[in-house]
Amino acid sequence: MTTDNKDILTRFLQEVWTEGNVDAVDRYLADQYTIHHDPGDAWHGRTLDIASFKERVSQSRAPFPNQRFIVQEMVAEGDKVACAWLWTGTHLADMPGFPASGKAVAISGLTLYSFSDGRLTGHWQVTDRLGVYQQLTQQREST
Amino acid sequence: MTTDNKDILTRFLQEVWTEGNVDAVDRYLADQYTIHHDPGDAWHGRTLDIASFKERVSQSRAPFPNQRFIVQEMVAEGDKVACAWLWTGTHLADMPGFPASGKAVAISGLTLYSFSDGRLTGHWQVTDRLGVYQQLTQQREST
Repeated sequence: MTTDNKDILTRFLQEVWTEGNVDAVDRYLADQYTIHHDPGDAWHGRTLDIASFKERVSQSRAPFPNQRFIVQEMVAEGDKVACAWLWTGTHLADMPGFPASGKAVAISGLTLYSFSDGRLTGHWQVTDRLGVYQQLTQQREST
Repeated sequence: MTTDNKDILTRFLQEVWTEGNVDAVDRYLADQYTIHHDPGDAWHGRTLDIASFKERVSQSRAPFPNQRFIVQEMVAEGDKVACAWLWTGTHLADMPGFPASGKAVAISGLTLYSFSDGRLTGHWQVTDRLGVYQQLTQQREST
């Protein structure tokens, strides 16, 4: 079961978040998905249905359309999987306060996912959002 | 084994990081402890012996001497334990660029700890360091 959940999570991160295949959400998510904790995420504290989750994926990926999640490690117990990850992306579309810059950004995060019957029901997450802020605000080297 | 590691980690966080009992490190740490990943931590990427780890605890706790780690959830598998936590502290001593302010700070983080024979050998961690920065730089309400 825990091995299955790791495999499911690996495919979910690759297909949905890295490749941006929003329709694949149907195969991975439970009917309700709760974002228990995720500082800086616009959906922090909310419970989403599948349509709302797809909207979150689309909106979150838009500023960094070539983003990639690179799994570093997974730890699974019962219906939980903790995942340590690195993330890279190029800032190609506007965000509030940050017009598209073309800058390459690389950060890390850890997420504790919950499953029920092989489907994702929510997460508790911390991302290095200061890393994003610092990399978007730093000056380019003069050329 | 995994239950033991959760119990050990719970006591380590309480005694060492919350209560500031630096000598208790002797009972929890392996001879070498590697900080594999911890953005913003001064010891990121380094392998510490027990004396160096004690110095890290003392230096890290100094600006927030009443700090508390409040464990939210643990997920254990083999020799790994992932831990989601909340943290509170009052900023009572100087940090580089941040003179003591008396401000209350509350953030969160996730840490993936490694064990060997019941002793801690390292971690991979992400903390909400933007939360610290925002709370230390925000203006107090006018009185």
